[in-house]
Amino acid sequence: MNIIVIGASGTIGRAVVEELGARHDIIEVGRTSGKHQVDITDIAGVRNLFERVGKADGVVVTAGDLHFGPLSDMTPAQFGIGLQHKLMGQVNVALAAQHYLNEGGSITLTSGIVGDEPIRFGVNATTVNAAVEGFARAAALELPRGLRINVVNPSVLKESMDAYGPYFHGFEPVPARRVALAYVKSVDGLQTGKVIRVW
Amino acid sequence: MNIIVIGASGTIGRAVVEELGARHDIIEVGRTSGKHQVDITDIAGVRNLFERVGKADGVVVTAGDLHFGPLSDMTPAQFGIGLQHKLMGQVNVALAAQHYLNEGGSITLTSGIVGDEPIRFGVNATTVNAAVEGFARAAALELPRGLRINVVNPSVLKESMDAYGPYFHGFEPVPARRVALAYVKSVDGLQTGKVIRVW
Repeated sequence: MNIIVIGASGTIGRAVVEELGARHDIIEVGRTSGKHQVDITDIAGVRNLFERVGKADGVVVTAGDLHFGPLSDMTPAQFGIGLQHKLMGQVNVALAAQHYLNEGGSITLTSGIVGDEPIRFGVNATTVNAAVEGFARAAALELPRGLRINVVNPSVLKESMDAYGPYFHGFEPVPARRVALAYVKSVDGLQTGKVIRVW
Repeated sequence: MNIIVIGASGTIGRAVVEELGARHDIIEVGRTSGKHQVDITDIAGVRNLFERVGKADGVVVTAGDLHFGPLSDMTPAQFGIGLQHKLMGQVNVALAAQHYLNEGGSITLTSGIVGDEPIRFGVNATTVNAAVEGFARAAALELPRGLRINVVNPSVLKESMDAYGPYFHGFEPVPARRVALAYVKSVDGLQTGKVIRVW
């Protein structure tokens, strides 16, 4: 199958490309790297990506910025970072993908453990991750032509503990290659509307 | 206590005003009605509301627009209606309220059953309701000075079945006065970070 991976150069993205690449043709996409570039906050750009790629059987998104900072001085603009990037970016991909993917194709989005288990400075992340999962829960019921949509919800990555460890004391980190299996389950499996947790 | 009710003229808002009004001083706020007017999508306007009201012990929001329509032709702008109104509107109220409410005061927001149980044309509603609940789950942990935040999650209102009934076949409608009790539980109780379902 032809599988588009948006965020292919990230820690999760690279692991997903490696796992899926064993059986599928991967189209690597990034903001500034990969075979194609896209800004997922711009739906016209996302549609243009699907036009350039041609028919595909799945799209995986492992990209999306969030804002981390204290609630006490958070501004609506800061809050909007996660809404525009990690939420609307992924929503844009799904809205476009429903018209481009082959029958039975899959859309796999990314949330994260902070949606369920809030951390210091993580209000934007909890909100956005919960929203992404809500979106998939509802969209799964309306998608046409046997299209499927799932969300992978990873814990903090082992590879990210140097950078984010202080915010995740007590969390059990997971290696990116284990997280990648959840994306494979979504792409190669049959389920839809599911949150696949890797904790 | 002085309790601000934003959305006081709506079906839920009126019931909340009646229930809370039995013991508290209610400041009724609406988009175009009530003692004060506010556009909750504008945080400067929300801050100005708190300045005009003076110290209060709680704020309840029973307002927030959503977009209903098929996923197949949904646009990012339509999707943004719920994000700007029901999500960011309520987030704006909470961001401002944390600086204005008296110690131990409460913030009570509104989600809805569609967050958990998607309906036809309800993708925006499921996403936004899940997001509001995520926001409160995280914000509850960071709020200062004993401030609390909860979300009331009502089923479809009995009073709204004439208008919305066709989208809620099989759902058990609840009367607004029963939903109002959940807001009372949030305002007069001790709990925080909770979703209070009225199904």
